[in-house]
Amino acid sequence: VDKVVSSAARAVADVPDGATVLIGGFGVIQGWPASLVDALATRGPRALTIVANTPGVGPLSPQRLAERGLVRKLVASYAVYPTQRAPMGDGITAGRIALELVPQGTLVERVRAGGAGLAAFYTPTGAGTEAADGKEARVFDGRGHVLERAIRGDVALVRAARADRYGNLTYRRGSRNVNPAFATAARTTIAEVDEIVEPGGLDPEAIVTPGIFVDRVVKTEHAMDPATLLALSRRYGKQWDLEARERPVGPRGLPPDLMARRVALLFEPGEYVNLGVGLPTLVSSVLDAEQGITLHSENGMLGFGPLADPGTATDVHRYNASGQLVTGLPGESFTDSAEAFAMARSGRVSTIVLGGFQVSASGDLANWRVPETGVGGIGGAMDLAAGRARVVVMMFHCTRAGAPKLVPRCTYPLTAERCVTTVVTDLAVIDVGPSGFVVRELAPGVGLDELRAVTAAPLAAAPDLHAMEF
Amino acid sequence: VDKVVSSAARAVADVPDGATVLIGGFGVIQGWPASLVDALATRGPRALTIVANTPGVGPLSPQRLAERGLVRKLVASYAVYPTQRAPMGDGITAGRIALELVPQGTLVERVRAGGAGLAAFYTPTGAGTEAADGKEARVFDGRGHVLERAIRGDVALVRAARADRYGNLTYRRGSRNVNPAFATAARTTIAEVDEIVEPGGLDPEAIVTPGIFVDRVVKTEHAMDPATLLALSRRYGKQWDLEARERPVGPRGLPPDLMARRVALLFEPGEYVNLGVGLPTLVSSVLDAEQGITLHSENGMLGFGPLADPGTATDVHRYNASGQLVTGLPGESFTDSAEAFAMARSGRVSTIVLGGFQVSASGDLANWRVPETGVGGIGGAMDLAAGRARVVVMMFHCTRAGAPKLVPRCTYPLTAERCVTTVVTDLAVIDVGPSGFVVRELAPGVGLDELRAVTAAPLAAAPDLHAMEF
Repeated sequence: VDKVVSSAARAVADVPDGATVLIGGFGVIQGWPASLVDALATRGPRALTIVANTPGVGPLSPQRLAERGLVRKLVASYAVYPTQRAPMGDGITAGRIALELVPQGTLVERVRAGGAGLAAFYTPTGAGTEAADGKEARVFDGRGHVLERAIRGDVALVRAARADRYGNLTYRRGSRNVNPAFATAARTTIAEVDEIVEPGGLDPEAIVTPGIFVDRVVKTEHAMDPATLLALSRRYGKQWDLEARERPVGPRGLPPDLMARRVALLFEPGEYVNLGVGLPTLVSSVLDAEQGITLHSENGMLGFGPLADPGTATDVHRYNASGQLVTGLPGESFTDSAEAFAMARSGRVSTIVLGGFQVSASGDLANWRVPETGVGGIGGAMDLAAGRARVVVMMFHCTRAGAPKLVPRCTYPLTAERCVTTVVTDLAVIDVGPSGFVVRELAPGVGLDELRAVTAAPLAAAPDLHAMEF
Repeated sequence: VDKVVSSAARAVADVPDGATVLIGGFGVIQGWPASLVDALATRGPRALTIVANTPGVGPLSPQRLAERGLVRKLVASYAVYPTQRAPMGDGITAGRIALELVPQGTLVERVRAGGAGLAAFYTPTGAGTEAADGKEARVFDGRGHVLERAIRGDVALVRAARADRYGNLTYRRGSRNVNPAFATAARTTIAEVDEIVEPGGLDPEAIVTPGIFVDRVVKTEHAMDPATLLALSRRYGKQWDLEARERPVGPRGLPPDLMARRVALLFEPGEYVNLGVGLPTLVSSVLDAEQGITLHSENGMLGFGPLADPGTATDVHRYNASGQLVTGLPGESFTDSAEAFAMARSGRVSTIVLGGFQVSASGDLANWRVPETGVGGIGGAMDLAAGRARVVVMMFHCTRAGAPKLVPRCTYPLTAERCVTTVVTDLAVIDVGPSGFVVRELAPGVGLDELRAVTAAPLAAAPDLHAMEF
């Protein structure tokens, strides 16, 4: 049973108009089955439904299909990047492409369910938010859940590291992500790989996708090396780093690196911690080894180290959920994204650090969409918050326009209800108590009255209110 | 974060009365976390709920807990072995132990859902059978489904091959089985391993259970080697081989090995095939390599070879779902049991060969319980049949008492409705057509009238009815 096909063009030659195509990959610019996507774009079947974690950025991503006008609908956890115009986002904005926005963990779980022959499941993710609109709700064990339907595709395009001729696949580190789940859930699964070996050439205990799920194997024409990634990153990806550190207009306060340090001091020794997109990623670089913190990322990395220097990093497959390259540590491990979200949803990730647009006095969090600026992206935050771990929000105290982000009630769409434990801003550390916000610490030089002036909800002072400590 | 604990006794010291204990392991005598089970039995918390694939056989299995009178309830896919008296079965029969019998794939999926923070899921497995009694039913895409609730435990006891001090685990071949899912779904997960290494000592790409799920690690006091397995097998396990070949009372017919050969000739080149417990396991030893058949087993083995000689086999971890040792082949791969059932339920396993107690003229199959002889076991057959693959039943034409097994309607509890495509018996090859049974081939020396005399349902003759070919 030799599943190797001689070219990407031959592998996708029978994808018809109207097909549902699952596309593996997680990040922004790296990790896509680029040869298969390109061959599909060249062949040109129309009215495709694309299921992908994100539409990506740049010519090696699913954007290529939207650029050619082949996409009728996108099912994804992100749709439009805030600082990047791209064909998929333009098509959505113009109404040419329909959009189904799905929480990231729910998306990969829906595809996994499709691949497992299940019809639907109840998840706490998104209960009480826009993501539950139009879906059946039900209470289990006193808690709201949402009924989510399985997803299957006509075709799955996945990217793996190595394959044997039977279609067995291995992956590399964070590049495993949604690929294993997506590979299980299509009538025809096509794998693009860096290397093809004879049966027996892969360690059978390290095979992640068994050949039974794979119909065709193609050698990639787009191997990803550090130089390529750096060039693409300079062209398409650089804003991900810059955004996080950009200071808003507003009163004086801590620089982001000190905010990160203050967040890190909240952790208990030995905790498993997830750092969300944006400011929270800075925390990975200020952890003390003695804290024994294990970092978790939604693409399936556990136990990684500080951010890597993109200019000198040699490993393009070790990246966090924001697509930033990170370093490795002894004892690290890799899973697929479905299992990464299982860790979070079941509460094994004990502290989650998320960015925020608004936090309400009852602990509601809004961090995925500013209605005035478009469709945004849910990402993984809803799933992370669903695990009832401690949720720390790390954000600037005010928007760039100077508007308060601590509010009586959120006016933006919610990420999760009553989930936030603590907020660390550039001005203060604030707990969410039973009666609302309680200021615990003030940044150097910031007074309580000054803080209240830039906060839209009442702020109580903790009995032991003191200056922020590092 | 050093998770290594000095002894099994210390690792289970805080398990309270009334706890729900998930116990990993799949087979009959091998692969149990025997040191932990023994320590728990010695400590003696009472009124335990045990969740296990099967209760096992012998002193290294969960039977040990029932022997000490510590079990209030068993949740499992098998409960009582037909030819083996054991404490768990005796307790169930006497009404001292409550029993919740669950299809094997549903059981591991329910535990996986618990570990993934999901509340429930809809599966086609068991729809229309006793396994669906008292559960919510619902039609998705025109097909009956059953709502199954997630399972979580207070404690999980799992058996792995190697651990590092962070609790990362690797497994060996078929011994992976339900352990990875069970490890995710308890408040406290305790792993018993053959070897403990420093962080960095395991290949991060081959770690199956990341340390985030594991709270304690203990070195086993019951390493399983071929000599130990052979001794146990002689004492407790030998009947599994013998049963399969025992000829019933009845008319002359093919010996089991020729039945197996006839079944093998039904396969298309390149098929993925599952062989059920009993007679079907014989098929693994009569396949031609040129057929390119890949064998699938519910414990998570794919691409294995013929049955091994238990007396000379050197690998105790390569065993099929019947617990029989098998040989390896290049290109084999291993997954956990949840993924093995995903392959079956989603239809990627294209032919399923099952034993049968009764097959009805409409293709209903009963193969898990004879009401007169006790509670039996559902095993994996319901999940395998749920994938709408071709289902071939391989069975003797009559019971040992001479009663017909091809019947107008099944009187025994069903495994699945309208699932059987073809029946291969010692007397004939019979298709299940839209209007009932159609005899396609007769065993040498067997006449159509003789066959009708031992069949309780009408038998049509195929236009090209002929002698069985090999």
